[in-house]
Amino acid sequence: MIEPMLSVRRGTQAVDFYKSAFGATEEFRVEAPDGAVVSKLVVDGAAFWVADESPEHEHFSPETLGGTTARIVLVSQDPDALFARAVAAGARQVWPVADQEYGWRVGRIKDPFGHHWEIGKPLEPT
Amino acid sequence: MIEPMLSVRRGTQAVDFYKSAFGATEEFRVEAPDGAVVSKLVVDGAAFWVADESPEHEHFSPETLGGTTARIVLVSQDPDALFARAVAAGARQVWPVADQEYGWRVGRIKDPFGHHWEIGKPLEPT
Repeated sequence: MIEPMLSVRRGTQAVDFYKSAFGATEEFRVEAPDGAVVSKLVVDGAAFWVADESPEHEHFSPETLGGTTARIVLVSQDPDALFARAVAAGARQVWPVADQEYGWRVGRIKDPFGHHWEIGKPLEPT
Repeated sequence: MIEPMLSVRRGTQAVDFYKSAFGATEEFRVEAPDGAVVSKLVVDGAAFWVADESPEHEHFSPETLGGTTARIVLVSQDPDALFARAVAAGARQVWPVADQEYGWRVGRIKDPFGHHWEIGKPLEPT
């Protein structure tokens, strides 16, 4: 299994956002005395992690660095619906869901914590 | 499915590194006229992507930003062997594989392209 761990500011708020935006469920959480969290979230059986940034370990939020070093491909059977849900929850559309010539139906959002998501699925062969 | 897409410099070299370090196989590759690649790699049935950085889309390599906004958890049945293989291929040990009090056997590396990997597995209940 390969599971990305996203560095964010305001980790507890980020967890709430991903629950709302993607219908994620939280499987595991560790909370430090200072409020920093490490949380494992699951969407349609696939896991990702959210952790408050720790600059001493070279883990920064996209807000701190002004960009990301990894974007996340989220494969969904209904990317249009999931994309719309994420935008309604506060994500910003970068480009809308559309059929791409490389054989995917996919769109891109930037979430309120600076992470980029490509929400899509492979097109059926025609 | 959730699949991280890692931004790197020297994309074709990075793909070769991940094949060597993790035994990854390449399932898909798009190469631009300027040599930039987008590559889908698979390790033990789990996928991740490698793409040359595109600053115009806020996608930067860790080398450019001096850190990462996401680290990658790689679950392996034999984390000790996979960790050793990655280090032999050129990754740097951040901390060695060891049993952690939160119930995982895990170590951390930083690869030559700046990405951080936690290689581990859940400990068996004792």
